[in-house]
Amino acid sequence: MGGDHGPPVVVAGVREYRKRHGGEGVRFLLHGDEAAIRAEMARNALGDDVCEVRHTDKVVAMTEKPAQAMRRGKGSSLWNAVEAVKAGEAGAVVSAGNTGALMAISKLILRMSAHGLERPAIVASWPTLRGVTAVLDVGANVESDAEQLVEFAIMGEAFHAAVHGGGKPTIGILNVGSEDMKGHEEVREAARILREGGFGLAYNGFVEGDDIAKGTVDVVVTDGFTGNIALKTAEGVARFISALMKEALTSSVPAKAGALLALPALKRMRQKIDPSAINGGPLLGLNGIVVKSHGGADAKGFGNAIRIAVELARSDYLEKVSKSLNRLTAVLEQPAAEDAAMETPQ
Amino acid sequence: MGGDHGPPVVVAGVREYRKRHGGEGVRFLLHGDEAAIRAEMARNALGDDVCEVRHTDKVVAMTEKPAQAMRRGKGSSLWNAVEAVKAGEAGAVVSAGNTGALMAISKLILRMSAHGLERPAIVASWPTLRGVTAVLDVGANVESDAEQLVEFAIMGEAFHAAVHGGGKPTIGILNVGSEDMKGHEEVREAARILREGGFGLAYNGFVEGDDIAKGTVDVVVTDGFTGNIALKTAEGVARFISALMKEALTSSVPAKAGALLALPALKRMRQKIDPSAINGGPLLGLNGIVVKSHGGADAKGFGNAIRIAVELARSDYLEKVSKSLNRLTAVLEQPAAEDAAMETPQ
Repeated sequence: MGGDHGPPVVVAGVREYRKRHGGEGVRFLLHGDEAAIRAEMARNALGDDVCEVRHTDKVVAMTEKPAQAMRRGKGSSLWNAVEAVKAGEAGAVVSAGNTGALMAISKLILRMSAHGLERPAIVASWPTLRGVTAVLDVGANVESDAEQLVEFAIMGEAFHAAVHGGGKPTIGILNVGSEDMKGHEEVREAARILREGGFGLAYNGFVEGDDIAKGTVDVVVTDGFTGNIALKTAEGVARFISALMKEALTSSVPAKAGALLALPALKRMRQKIDPSAINGGPLLGLNGIVVKSHGGADAKGFGNAIRIAVELARSDYLEKVSKSLNRLTAVLEQPAAEDAAMETPQ
Repeated sequence: MGGDHGPPVVVAGVREYRKRHGGEGVRFLLHGDEAAIRAEMARNALGDDVCEVRHTDKVVAMTEKPAQAMRRGKGSSLWNAVEAVKAGEAGAVVSAGNTGALMAISKLILRMSAHGLERPAIVASWPTLRGVTAVLDVGANVESDAEQLVEFAIMGEAFHAAVHGGGKPTIGILNVGSEDMKGHEEVREAARILREGGFGLAYNGFVEGDDIAKGTVDVVVTDGFTGNIALKTAEGVARFISALMKEALTSSVPAKAGALLALPALKRMRQKIDPSAINGGPLLGLNGIVVKSHGGADAKGFGNAIRIAVELARSDYLEKVSKSLNRLTAVLEQPAAEDAAMETPQ
């Protein structure tokens, strides 16, 4: 029921997912208003063999505050969808609904696996010159200490390996320079833990802002404040350049003619940075797979969010992360143990 | 002597400044190797009426560390240029040299006027849909408390009014959302001081990353860590889109023909985001005007850095900032005074 459009986009998203990504053996539990959902299933030629409808009248509004949604959300389509993951009925949940409510309800029902985090981390799949780079956190954890940054690295790596594939993902921590002494205490300490912690990660050191679009590394780790601002700044710049382009290419008759000739090439270029091709941001750090689709996504975009959820669910993502997070807990407890050992001789 | 090119660009920059921006009544002290400088003066038809040469053999290398430059830099062209401002011989210094050395030597000789800052702030002039927005700090002060953020607001406003002109500049603090409770303690406290401090500034509240390129406000205030990453992320995205464009417009014969037709319009567009048209970042927070040109800037770019220095020197920038910084000191001392007053009755 979530997102700006509700069932028409969500159900058409199932069709798009099956059309573009196959989806053999994937079945869907659709939570919400049965009549509205069944109407869309008919329109998209989806039968009961693929979709099972779980009726509820209750909906979490897009404007509801997270605390409100947690108190009053029980039995809503969003709540029931997350519950189905907890109960083992579903391998993952995909929602285009209220982000704050999805985070709060997911945390309440599934609990955090990353104990350093206050809230699940949001990862952005960023198109780059070399492919796709995962950037996290881009939203929820505004102040991130070294432990949280390392958790982002662990989860981002497992996410990139499961969804964007191709070899062992490389990791960088976002900073104001690449030298070891650059930046504040949190990034320097996180770098130390990643280098010495024995997580088996390909940690490449500090990266700078322009390394994101270059694709210097596969996973860029940063606190939620900086990540959110970097992402939105990038969106702003992309829209700014696009507005200038449009202005330039309609500014004269020859420019218009030129634009017409170059149109197919420009369209192919646009596909490379098409938001719907990268739609679907998993909420990381939970005991279960939760993928957030953009509220304004179209069916193709929602289909891509489904693809990400399926790839995460079919991979070893959850076990891999759980193992590394346990290792992190051990590493963080170590200094205390060493101090104790050093005290023994006395 | 500074920058990637030395006298050929610096002296040609003087010519460009005079050609593009008039510069009546502006005279130049050129510090460095007299023979090299005089050769460039002859090449650019600049006489002794405009340029006075101050010879020195000593140069701060581009690779020198700031601490090294402070210890060994005395008598170098960079040092002497800053000294001339301190001595009242020059109204401003413009350098394309070693940024760290320029900051360290400027701080040593001119001293900070903004007492909350460890280092001068660097301001970026950011092209937007509405004109130019000043973003600061983009480099030096990696951890910025509320006092520093307010200092950035005061200095950024005076800079924008002096250089980018046109009405009273509006100010926003960069954050992850526009609501009052968003972000961390430092930004919320800075917002409170700006709202209640009586600085006579047009403070508009929190802005998000995409507001920079939109030009929502004239001055965007942020800590040096986030500002540096936002700026470099934006540069990376601009280069990424430019690379995709180039690829698209050379990908087929019709695309190439289209690009050719649209070329004049695309060139005009490029001028709007031409780095040399916005080159010149003042180091703010010093008792004197210091403008840093990009090391790789061309003569036109260096000429623009000169323009910025002249406009700052001819404006009431320094007095205006000094007055507001004094006001800030009073405001910050106030709570302590109130506490004392509240204790009196006991």
